[in-house]
Amino acid sequence: MNKVVLTADRPSGKLHLGHYVGSLVHRIQLQKDHRPYIMVADVQALTDNFEHPERVAENILEVTRDYLAVGIDPHKATIFVQSQVPELTEMTVYFLNFVTLARLERNPTVKAEIAQKGYETSLPMGFLCYPVSQTADIVAFKTDIVPVGEDQLPMIELSNEIVRRFNRIYQTEVLKEAEPLVGKVGRLVGIDGKEKASKSLNNAIFLADSPEDIRQKIFSMFTDPHHLKVSDPGTVEGNVVFTYLEAFHQDKEEVAALKAHYQRGGLGDTAIKERLNTTLQTFLAPIRERRAPLKDADLKEILHTGTQEARKVAQITLQEIRTAMHLCYF
Amino acid sequence: MNKVVLTADRPSGKLHLGHYVGSLVHRIQLQKDHRPYIMVADVQALTDNFEHPERVAENILEVTRDYLAVGIDPHKATIFVQSQVPELTEMTVYFLNFVTLARLERNPTVKAEIAQKGYETSLPMGFLCYPVSQTADIVAFKTDIVPVGEDQLPMIELSNEIVRRFNRIYQTEVLKEAEPLVGKVGRLVGIDGKEKASKSLNNAIFLADSPEDIRQKIFSMFTDPHHLKVSDPGTVEGNVVFTYLEAFHQDKEEVAALKAHYQRGGLGDTAIKERLNTTLQTFLAPIRERRAPLKDADLKEILHTGTQEARKVAQITLQEIRTAMHLCYF
Repeated sequence: MNKVVLTADRPSGKLHLGHYVGSLVHRIQLQKDHRPYIMVADVQALTDNFEHPERVAENILEVTRDYLAVGIDPHKATIFVQSQVPELTEMTVYFLNFVTLARLERNPTVKAEIAQKGYETSLPMGFLCYPVSQTADIVAFKTDIVPVGEDQLPMIELSNEIVRRFNRIYQTEVLKEAEPLVGKVGRLVGIDGKEKASKSLNNAIFLADSPEDIRQKIFSMFTDPHHLKVSDPGTVEGNVVFTYLEAFHQDKEEVAALKAHYQRGGLGDTAIKERLNTTLQTFLAPIRERRAPLKDADLKEILHTGTQEARKVAQITLQEIRTAMHLCYF
Repeated sequence: MNKVVLTADRPSGKLHLGHYVGSLVHRIQLQKDHRPYIMVADVQALTDNFEHPERVAENILEVTRDYLAVGIDPHKATIFVQSQVPELTEMTVYFLNFVTLARLERNPTVKAEIAQKGYETSLPMGFLCYPVSQTADIVAFKTDIVPVGEDQLPMIELSNEIVRRFNRIYQTEVLKEAEPLVGKVGRLVGIDGKEKASKSLNNAIFLADSPEDIRQKIFSMFTDPHHLKVSDPGTVEGNVVFTYLEAFHQDKEEVAALKAHYQRGGLGDTAIKERLNTTLQTFLAPIRERRAPLKDADLKEILHTGTQEARKVAQITLQEIRTAMHLCYF
């Protein structure tokens, strides 16, 4: 296959299980026979962290550490830092011409995020424009596939719209449409069961969490509020413990049996939480162990090399874009 | 004084008398004892010409030709092309974080332009964001003074707001506020008397217009529609011929006398138009003569040299911005 795959994370905190099931697990698979670019999206992270840029700077190495810990191989994947490929900002400014305000405001992902962050009349333009910046990221590397959570599908749609509009106006095929690849779980709910897991909502289990933190978070998980006694029949839909068991427990038959038992009554919340704790501790221990010894200097070297590689490719695409737009004079 | 002065023109057509009184005349004065940067704003021109980039490309040399024809000296002024200083687009993307959608929509200049162009729900983001791109242009060169038409004052205000916000958030003095310098006429009305002179409204006299075109445009000028007979008293307010006489006729006493005569009756429209024709032909003939022999290759060389100079300065500012934003990792 050897298709180009682009993925990214905002370095506004360490990565968590939501990132794992939504994206990291695919990357590990995809690096076997594809050409992955993995972007540490610091410019995008600044759109809602511009008042605290030190948070973004600090987390660039932490996110890279998470990548290596889950098994991403820098010899197979190009790991790079968004801000160090300035060609992306130039493309962003050009692409702003190919999308209307109304179209951006209609984007369901952006709409949900605006509501969640409580912007309204104080919506920063950088935040409103970030889907256009994402389009630049996608097209710069002639991306074929973008693994995404379901909630990010409208972003790929918007990006492809900009691509088609650009190619049509300039009668060119310089820009390439990308295909979304939605994960089997895609969007992982937070431990509170309300929203997707995220650092800002403080409802996520991080890849680097200590065994104690993991256990504590599991025991605070939302289950079935009507399941008061062990003998009561319980509901598995919307029960976060079962959602996580389905996502992380290897033995699918055992999960089905646990669900059936819980539904007919006789299986307590403590018991299923202990089961999940064993599952997640087993899953996260080796990641935490691979994470610990990784040195800052080595991570920087990996990012530096990856960024140089990414920049070379982006420069070629930018030159093609400039040519299509008649922006070559001397 | 030796202050940094930034001016710019969108290369969407040749320059006209509106550009002259609003900006060019100041530049010629300012280059005597200041440090002028003159930007051919092709990226900005693309925001409302992106479907016809060839128009922008074609007019880059025409605008430069106009600069030299009116007396701008490339040894005193740095004439450069916006798109060839990509540092400006990078600054633009960062500065989008420091302005809200509501603030941009409230900008009177942008509001008027949106109405004039009939955007509405189809407002392209590139157009809405161009004041932020202008902020990048202004701060990149540590600009002290921006000569503007009165209608552009809200742009400088917005730019200074972004500057103050950036400096406050990052506890820095990297960005410099700019002072607007409004011309004595500032905004020149078009020959139709309705709007300011502009290429898109087809109501402007161009610096490169032929003597016949100039005469024809003057004779189609809006005067006083109630001034039917020569003997009738006429109105000079809103009478385009007098507006242009005031702007271009050297002998201010003669203009005052003509106005008084017209107001009390006895001075016909043909007579004042002939007077203006003599004035403008005298004014424009030497410009047209200096314009004609300028070779494309020489103009390109001037732009190339100016762009290299401008880029060096912009790179220094960008590095300061990146440092303030913690965007330096390796």
